[in-house]
Amino acid sequence: MLNRVRSAVAHLVSSGGAPPPRPKSPDLPNAPSPQTAAPPEAPRSPPATAGSGSAAPAKTVEARASFSRPTFLQLSPGGLRRAVDHAGRAVQSPPDTGRRLPWSTGYAEVINAGKSRHNEDQACCEVVYVEGRRSVSGAPREPSQGQGLCFYYWGLFDGHAGGGAAEMAARLLHRHIREQLKDLSCWSSQKEVTHESLVVGAIENAFQFMDEQMARERRGHQVEGGCCALVVVYLLGKVYVANAGDSRAIIVRNGEIIPMSREFTPETERQRLQLLGFLKPELLGGEFTHLEFPRRIQPKELGQRMLYRDQNMTGWAYKKIELEDLRFPLVCGEGKKARVMATIGVTRGLGDHNLKVCSSTLPIKPFLSCFPEVRVYDLTQYEHCPDDVLVLGTDGLWDVTSDCEVAATVDRVLSAYEPNDPSRYKALAQALVLGARGTPRDRGWRLPNNKLGSGDDISVFVIPLGGPGSYS
Amino acid sequence: MLNRVRSAVAHLVSSGGAPPPRPKSPDLPNAPSPQTAAPPEAPRSPPATAGSGSAAPAKTVEARASFSRPTFLQLSPGGLRRAVDHAGRAVQSPPDTGRRLPWSTGYAEVINAGKSRHNEDQACCEVVYVEGRRSVSGAPREPSQGQGLCFYYWGLFDGHAGGGAAEMAARLLHRHIREQLKDLSCWSSQKEVTHESLVVGAIENAFQFMDEQMARERRGHQVEGGCCALVVVYLLGKVYVANAGDSRAIIVRNGEIIPMSREFTPETERQRLQLLGFLKPELLGGEFTHLEFPRRIQPKELGQRMLYRDQNMTGWAYKKIELEDLRFPLVCGEGKKARVMATIGVTRGLGDHNLKVCSSTLPIKPFLSCFPEVRVYDLTQYEHCPDDVLVLGTDGLWDVTSDCEVAATVDRVLSAYEPNDPSRYKALAQALVLGARGTPRDRGWRLPNNKLGSGDDISVFVIPLGGPGSYS
Repeated sequence: MLNRVRSAVAHLVSSGGAPPPRPKSPDLPNAPSPQTAAPPEAPRSPPATAGSGSAAPAKTVEARASFSRPTFLQLSPGGLRRAVDHAGRAVQSPPDTGRRLPWSTGYAEVINAGKSRHNEDQACCEVVYVEGRRSVSGAPREPSQGQGLCFYYWGLFDGHAGGGAAEMAARLLHRHIREQLKDLSCWSSQKEVTHESLVVGAIENAFQFMDEQMARERRGHQVEGGCCALVVVYLLGKVYVANAGDSRAIIVRNGEIIPMSREFTPETERQRLQLLGFLKPELLGGEFTHLEFPRRIQPKELGQRMLYRDQNMTGWAYKKIELEDLRFPLVCGEGKKARVMATIGVTRGLGDHNLKVCSSTLPIKPFLSCFPEVRVYDLTQYEHCPDDVLVLGTDGLWDVTSDCEVAATVDRVLSAYEPNDPSRYKALAQALVLGARGTPRDRGWRLPNNKLGSGDDISVFVIPLGGPGSYS
Repeated sequence: MLNRVRSAVAHLVSSGGAPPPRPKSPDLPNAPSPQTAAPPEAPRSPPATAGSGSAAPAKTVEARASFSRPTFLQLSPGGLRRAVDHAGRAVQSPPDTGRRLPWSTGYAEVINAGKSRHNEDQACCEVVYVEGRRSVSGAPREPSQGQGLCFYYWGLFDGHAGGGAAEMAARLLHRHIREQLKDLSCWSSQKEVTHESLVVGAIENAFQFMDEQMARERRGHQVEGGCCALVVVYLLGKVYVANAGDSRAIIVRNGEIIPMSREFTPETERQRLQLLGFLKPELLGGEFTHLEFPRRIQPKELGQRMLYRDQNMTGWAYKKIELEDLRFPLVCGEGKKARVMATIGVTRGLGDHNLKVCSSTLPIKPFLSCFPEVRVYDLTQYEHCPDDVLVLGTDGLWDVTSDCEVAATVDRVLSAYEPNDPSRYKALAQALVLGARGTPRDRGWRLPNNKLGSGDDISVFVIPLGGPGSYS
């Protein structure tokens, strides 16, 4: 995720001093060059002693947030040292000893190659009990009426510009979902409002409340940066996959790939962003134009005809260049280099309340959406075999691995294990992370085909859909 | 389309007097009952003499616009009488004599069953020559440089609240497209801007300019109401299908159905409409709420918990009812009864600049989009046979005919004709219109399965994709 926020850390309000004054000429803002954008930081030596997650000794919030790894990894002090070593980049998984993750879920992660000090990915895997809420009428319910329910929960959080938001989301988002799902007990069948649509609404609102909590607590608790969130909820036979950001989930079923999410980037959300800039031009601060051009326009081109794209358009057309068109475009760049306001490369997620345009006080948060897209998969509609899995990965995986390559790895790894061997899903997660990381060679981490591996944090869940896990 | 605008005619500014005062209580506005909404009008006797389209004698603009039928129908005075007879509902097609439509395109139409005075559908089919524009630099081009190009064009326009907008669009939209396509000559290959995306942009902008022209000329020329627009452009091997409204286009290829459009209604565009109401609450005039509820809320329910859906949500959640929630919802109703501001059932199209909320001065146009969705089909990627067709129909067809039923009719009718018989596509268009209209029986027009046929205007183009037509 590091690449996706340019120098954002330097512009956080929490960093202290007032932002530097910036010229108002239409030539600005200039996107910083990649070299200056996200400077590779020397890996800080890991502390001599450090617990994992909540087991860590009392430290400043910043340190705790930055160094914690998922508690289910059960990292020893030595394990944590290996986990945070940017040079070795050891793949981490829950130990074979101790309690297994629900459904024999596989998990593996690896830290980045030095692009940021800490591993800014976070993960959570829980079984959550939901107590029923009081009835709609407001009358307190008899204790015997209080029928609760359980849901299974997996979350991947890919932080940027600091690890605070991802750490907070990993710690709290499922609690917000639990709170929202209490309303399920109020539900009585109504036309067009299905049980499924209530779960979807509960997850959507939980994301919003999580984001609002980050906004409230950002000063007191130093919630740094923001994070992408990819969350899976299993409830009453259905799998809900909620995505806000550029992580990805796919189901591999009998070798077939079923996409369970899509990525939210300045390219995929161009029209939403442009529409907002068009309807609320004050959010552009007189510095940006909501129009898109194929390249930056020079002042000497005023009055000439130029290709452009407006918020309603998928095609391109010509217009005569006016003074306003010389402003920097709200959305610019292509592929992984696409940016909103020359700053951030993901358009949905949690946090980022302090994120400002480089060298400016213009807030970017209004253009970011905390709402996920939720896709639903009915587990009961298909007889799943132990090789059918739901794979969740942060962009560190998907930047260098295609869906088809993941499906091939699923086939290769799982077929090497007995179908009832619960460790096969962890082995698969490790294989996926290793395959995306590569090995150190030729001044970098390289894949077998000699292409560069991912230098980003990489985190992967492998959730078996028809394996030995009991879904009750 | 008539059903889709409730009493809109009565509230057009052009109708004269000031709108009646209306109570501001949150109980309002009430959607008029279907009985009072679009009163069946007695069919007006056709004039003794009337030409078709531009051949019509000088009349008031209103009369000309209302009575004109596509010129390619070459209607005689007697033919026009039959065409406007709501009781007989004779199916109209171009005569066998005279010039055939390009590509041997089939066309058929029928007037409504008395729901509106005139047939508010309009159609256009043309071969359009585009002259190259001057070069980008502005220097005049040498005559020898002036390389033009031709495109084939089909348009269906389903008018509502009057026939003026549909008539104007049928007469002028392809000219706007021609004007925009002149820019193609400026194009030099640039990254990410393909030739195809320029054609798409040209069509998108043409829709906008057409809509702006309607806004400018609505008073002088009495451009009544609005219209859905479904347009096909064939240019350099590719078919561009642009849709704004609830008409539909499908390709039937070797029996397979390929959707070439989607419908834009308050249901399919709920989130776009709600977002606009959320970002620009002044457009709601203090009378509507952008939130959606499963049913109308009663004042006595204030403070209770109620299901709702916001612009970011696809699911439902609960909220405590506040005073603002008692306002009428911006989007209400289901299926064909869904409405924006209790008034209109389509959310994209041309015109409607004077459309107001029933019994109010609140304009609805800001919520309507004139921009089409354009889908592209590359004719060169597949070896088409004479039975492969692109079918365009107004909602009169699709309200009572599924895609599969259309595909079955394609198969049934075309197999009854020789592959090189150019009249087979007209016969197919007629069969589709007849199949949607039904026959008069049991106090209504009924289909063979005794369900009600469509009482709406019905218009159908059948465009052969691999037939005897020459695509040069």
